[in-house]
Amino acid sequence: MKVSDLGEFGLIDHLAKMAYGAQDKEAVAWQQLILGIGDDTAAWYGDTSIQLATVDSLIQDVHFTLDIVSWEELGWRALTANLSDIAAMGGLPRYALVSLGLPGHTELEDVTALYKGMIELAQRFEVAIVGGDISSAPLVIISITILGSTQGSDKHMLTRSAAKPGEKVAVTGYLGAAAAGLEMLTKHLQLGSEATASLKKAFLHPYPRVAEGQILVEHGVRVAIDISDGLISDLSHICQASQVGARIEIDRVPIHPAVEANFGDRALELALSGGEDYELLFTASTEIIDKVTATSSYPITVIGEIMADKVGEVTLVDGEGNPVSPPGVGWEHFTTRRS
Amino acid sequence: MKVSDLGEFGLIDHLAKMAYGAQDKEAVAWQQLILGIGDDTAAWYGDTSIQLATVDSLIQDVHFTLDIVSWEELGWRALTANLSDIAAMGGLPRYALVSLGLPGHTELEDVTALYKGMIELAQRFEVAIVGGDISSAPLVIISITILGSTQGSDKHMLTRSAAKPGEKVAVTGYLGAAAAGLEMLTKHLQLGSEATASLKKAFLHPYPRVAEGQILVEHGVRVAIDISDGLISDLSHICQASQVGARIEIDRVPIHPAVEANFGDRALELALSGGEDYELLFTASTEIIDKVTATSSYPITVIGEIMADKVGEVTLVDGEGNPVSPPGVGWEHFTTRRS
Repeated sequence: MKVSDLGEFGLIDHLAKMAYGAQDKEAVAWQQLILGIGDDTAAWYGDTSIQLATVDSLIQDVHFTLDIVSWEELGWRALTANLSDIAAMGGLPRYALVSLGLPGHTELEDVTALYKGMIELAQRFEVAIVGGDISSAPLVIISITILGSTQGSDKHMLTRSAAKPGEKVAVTGYLGAAAAGLEMLTKHLQLGSEATASLKKAFLHPYPRVAEGQILVEHGVRVAIDISDGLISDLSHICQASQVGARIEIDRVPIHPAVEANFGDRALELALSGGEDYELLFTASTEIIDKVTATSSYPITVIGEIMADKVGEVTLVDGEGNPVSPPGVGWEHFTTRRS
Repeated sequence: MKVSDLGEFGLIDHLAKMAYGAQDKEAVAWQQLILGIGDDTAAWYGDTSIQLATVDSLIQDVHFTLDIVSWEELGWRALTANLSDIAAMGGLPRYALVSLGLPGHTELEDVTALYKGMIELAQRFEVAIVGGDISSAPLVIISITILGSTQGSDKHMLTRSAAKPGEKVAVTGYLGAAAAGLEMLTKHLQLGSEATASLKKAFLHPYPRVAEGQILVEHGVRVAIDISDGLISDLSHICQASQVGARIEIDRVPIHPAVEANFGDRALELALSGGEDYELLFTASTEIIDKVTATSSYPITVIGEIMADKVGEVTLVDGEGNPVSPPGVGWEHFTTRRS
């Protein structure tokens, strides 16, 4: 069997089982481990907080092409993808390790710009870039590891596996803009200047919702994921990890205004399946969500609820509660993306 | 300027300066940082020990070719390269994150073997593989992050930057076997069965010297590096970081017996410049080295000394103390390897 037959998520499951099969109950590493493979980050007990660690790689012509993303934007985006995983745990990022693969003919100026983009974002979150390695490679490869921790002595965090039937499903911000931005740049779409600017920003300068993750965890939210693969795909990760189902009311999905205004019928699809918005998707009781909404100046929208049936599945319903079929699926490596 | 003009180490210096330029004295990350870019691992203060983190990537046809290394051996070697960096700090490895890039046509069986090799080595050091990511890629990319810590409350570790004139230079084990093994496999050399077995093992199943690193730090050694690029190259990293010079007596270099017996005049070159032996190279006073030797069952050989002059340089001398020219240089990305 080839890995493309199994798909990214099937392969992760397979390798996670192997890693867990090697568990040694006497070993300190396993005794202190809270979360291994399968959540936004790994997590283990430190002395006064939970330690978090995550790695994400971007590979040229798989995750990005240098014709639409500048080196500086690439650095920013690469770090966002990683910081976003820490945000989705309700954690604070602290240290970054950067592993680069670069063709020998790469201009120093370009690598400098790449680091400039990373450093600019790192500074906003007081993250120190403290290590890494550099290799020659036939194409550009950026692999970033982030180490962070949860805050406070109560050692709470946001996992994928604690969603309960009856909880509401909510998202921060607006969706679809990053995917619309990518489409606009790839297909050279001519949109109004305001839409162009905001879609470009969404795709090229996404912002990790670290502060929002902190607010969620402080107010008692215990379940979240960042929207990197797409709303439906990422919600289904929560459903599978929590052994629940979920229902989304499509009329409630907060489609980004510039997407709504310019992408017609496809706006909903971009919001549901687009990915790379790096907003947070979370579940909690109405009371907790009300408290979060009252504290946060950032938009929060309830879009559905967690159900006991249809375990692992995300059902879309219209305003009358009738099921609708999904307009597309999220990103999965080794499979062909539907669009 | 292209990165190939600057070379791997020049590029690391450049990017390290950028990262340090972004230092924010108020930020916790920078306040607790002990070592950033430029040593075997990054290091920062945890509550009861020093936290260590390192990342290393292996890229197909740059670091390995699948015609001479099996997938299982590849998994083992990839993890060794990383555990060796923790060993060179006198630390204990604890958690591993694995980022894989794989072509879609990769056989599941092969990825399973890759993980099997990694897990086998991880288990010997009680390391838990707890996260990572998987992407489709045009070639195989393995990026491993290891998190670990120093042991004991005295918070000592082995850095590159504390070597002092008058200290002796010593190495663990025997050198040149990994490079000789690679050459034997690449050129299909027919050697005796014992030599074949031991050179194969040295190249395909190198063993990280974690236990030896622990013994060094416990007995007061404060300077070490693992031999990954080659003895001369790695010793020059210590010299540059410590602002000292070093002299190696070539007659004292512990060339691996199978290399000595089969590679004639080139044996010394392989031992001095071969790389990937993953032995530890360290400096300390004669008294400390005597204590280490008395405790360790593993071979330890004094091969030279640290000097105040010729800062950043490694000088080779013969039995009479006369300078000899180096037979080759160590590995550096973006430059052509002399052999």
